[in-house]
Amino acid sequence: MNRRSFISSLGTSSAALAAWPMPAFDPARAGRAIRTEIAAGRQPQPKMSARPPVAFAAIGLNHSHIYSQIETMLGNGATLTAVYAKEPELVAAFTKRYPQARVARTEQEILDDKAIQLVVSAGIPNERAPLGIRVMQAGKDFMVDKPGVTTLAHLAEARRVQAQTKRIYSILYGGRLESPATQRAVELVHAGAIGQVLHTMGSGPHKIGADRPDWFWKREQFGGVLGDLGTHQVDYFLAFTKATRGAVVAARSGNLHHPDKPDFEDFGDAMLQAETAAGYFRVDWFTPGGVATFGDSRLTVMGTDGYLEVRPNVDLAGRPGGSHLFLVDQKETRYIEAKDTPLPYGPRLLDDIVNRTETAMPQAYTFLVAQLVLEAQAQARPPVLSK
Amino acid sequence: MNRRSFISSLGTSSAALAAWPMPAFDPARAGRAIRTEIAAGRQPQPKMSARPPVAFAAIGLNHSHIYSQIETMLGNGATLTAVYAKEPELVAAFTKRYPQARVARTEQEILDDKAIQLVVSAGIPNERAPLGIRVMQAGKDFMVDKPGVTTLAHLAEARRVQAQTKRIYSILYGGRLESPATQRAVELVHAGAIGQVLHTMGSGPHKIGADRPDWFWKREQFGGVLGDLGTHQVDYFLAFTKATRGAVVAARSGNLHHPDKPDFEDFGDAMLQAETAAGYFRVDWFTPGGVATFGDSRLTVMGTDGYLEVRPNVDLAGRPGGSHLFLVDQKETRYIEAKDTPLPYGPRLLDDIVNRTETAMPQAYTFLVAQLVLEAQAQARPPVLSK
Repeated sequence: MNRRSFISSLGTSSAALAAWPMPAFDPARAGRAIRTEIAAGRQPQPKMSARPPVAFAAIGLNHSHIYSQIETMLGNGATLTAVYAKEPELVAAFTKRYPQARVARTEQEILDDKAIQLVVSAGIPNERAPLGIRVMQAGKDFMVDKPGVTTLAHLAEARRVQAQTKRIYSILYGGRLESPATQRAVELVHAGAIGQVLHTMGSGPHKIGADRPDWFWKREQFGGVLGDLGTHQVDYFLAFTKATRGAVVAARSGNLHHPDKPDFEDFGDAMLQAETAAGYFRVDWFTPGGVATFGDSRLTVMGTDGYLEVRPNVDLAGRPGGSHLFLVDQKETRYIEAKDTPLPYGPRLLDDIVNRTETAMPQAYTFLVAQLVLEAQAQARPPVLSK
Repeated sequence: MNRRSFISSLGTSSAALAAWPMPAFDPARAGRAIRTEIAAGRQPQPKMSARPPVAFAAIGLNHSHIYSQIETMLGNGATLTAVYAKEPELVAAFTKRYPQARVARTEQEILDDKAIQLVVSAGIPNERAPLGIRVMQAGKDFMVDKPGVTTLAHLAEARRVQAQTKRIYSILYGGRLESPATQRAVELVHAGAIGQVLHTMGSGPHKIGADRPDWFWKREQFGGVLGDLGTHQVDYFLAFTKATRGAVVAARSGNLHHPDKPDFEDFGDAMLQAETAAGYFRVDWFTPGGVATFGDSRLTVMGTDGYLEVRPNVDLAGRPGGSHLFLVDQKETRYIEAKDTPLPYGPRLLDDIVNRTETAMPQAYTFLVAQLVLEAQAQARPPVLSK
């Protein structure tokens, strides 16, 4: 494995820690052997000549996630040719950044363009699946921001049309696919670093911030807090456990502290179950102003022979940067700075578009995540006794 | 508040962090203003003259927690006068450390001793409640290691006899009452540091280690993993939320990876609910050898205006020591070294014994924790689909 690795022997060289305002360091307390590791640097970009360029368009720009979706495609050699959105101001901002994108007058103009192979979208959540279905029916592949489906009826129709058309309906589960630390964690777990996975526990707190659009507050449009933020969490559970079926044991969602927005949900959680592992997650919109990230997400994965913790956005009052991975096995504690872990989703999706393969994410997996999320949403009960 | 406090302005003085093998530190990523705080030192011991000395005895020495129970009483001015246990080797080890303890020939000899006001016990878990009931019926107070009750029938009887005799039945919920960081967290939360509590999430991993006695593996004797390890977790939930009623939404427990010990439970989790807050916890016996603590416990408390995380045993690959508290509010991120936080349980319990008050922990609260734990245990289902 091409990885720079070195021992940070805290017992004999505690200069870094000595600077903390603490009493003498007792290495027996903070872990046995502690090893610091830096994940391998980004792999060289795949040669452009290895794959014919994929022409793609954007439809629906309501969430700014669209920009990372576009960058992922451009950075892997795809060609952006057109854009359509109902909102002129969103189109104007988009074409300022991407002047190469022709502005289509209608969605249909893009669907009718035989040269376009892929449509990417971050439209209003409950409009995404209907769009994806039209895209597949027009013979194109679809890559969409999460939540990629907001109702079980939409999911059934998306599954039906996908099976019929054999197009790709890819939901960008960014909490994993765009997170170097989480990507590295998946690789390590699948390589057996903590034995067999028994439990995953994730928290996905979020900051509301300012200037949220109207649809952000409307449950039908944003799809419910479990369906929205919970999507990443169910993806973690199924990805780490490699589960091929799952069940929701219990789920809760509701509005605990935003009485002025009665149709909003600010809290949700759920217990999950797979063949050989259990899971839990909590998502919320309560991240306070005193931390400079949209949310101090955490993910703990417990195995038969170790556990790991991902701190993908911030190491609270700790190390700089935002790609932290801690792994404990039977022998040692490792800190892994994971920011340079390669993210294979983009190149693999483009390969899949060209080769009609499923290397980025199996289609059945994509829909299974959505199904479990929507089942949680459907059976969610109030989070507290009195509300 | 008598507390040393100082600003660790990482933006301008990043010497400590610069020593980590990291790229340049971006303070905007690791938190806004970061403040390091050291909790107030231990309060002076209460004057012995303020309270008549309390004479106490130990009955049941099966768990080594008995030693911290004894130390807590001795350190606050109580007088150890006698000991009884069925196992001569446990008595021998005990009297070697505490030669002042007269060895009673029978439990009854201690119960009949009018001078003894308090019995402390860490006997085999399922024998604790019957002992506590006999102790109260003999007119004495009782302080017991957790789990303090292992069946709902025992709980009902303990409640009945306690109400009848007006004796104290105190269960030492050590995860809070013996943990400086957790104690400090409770104080801060009750003072409003994170607004109204909405959610608590705890994990209580444990290391099995070597030389566990027979009863450790027998469900009837240890009381089930939720009833045993889960006790701390339910205590956290009720203590932080100040809930006076609670419900179990869902619970799971089972044996995931110890097939040679079929009557053991190595995993449990549960979702809890109170009037205005939700909770979740996981407990397990999977702590691997690579971390030098019995378990990397965590507790996250989310409020309407902030959140905190307690790392009471280890700051994984981080700061030395074992009493770490991280608190984020609307303005800043604080790291609090909490090891010197005073622990009021011991002196308050002795006060209560003398004054017939409930300052250490209300009796109704003690039983409510046990009730919720035992309800979780009673309704627990298998953790995974196939097992």
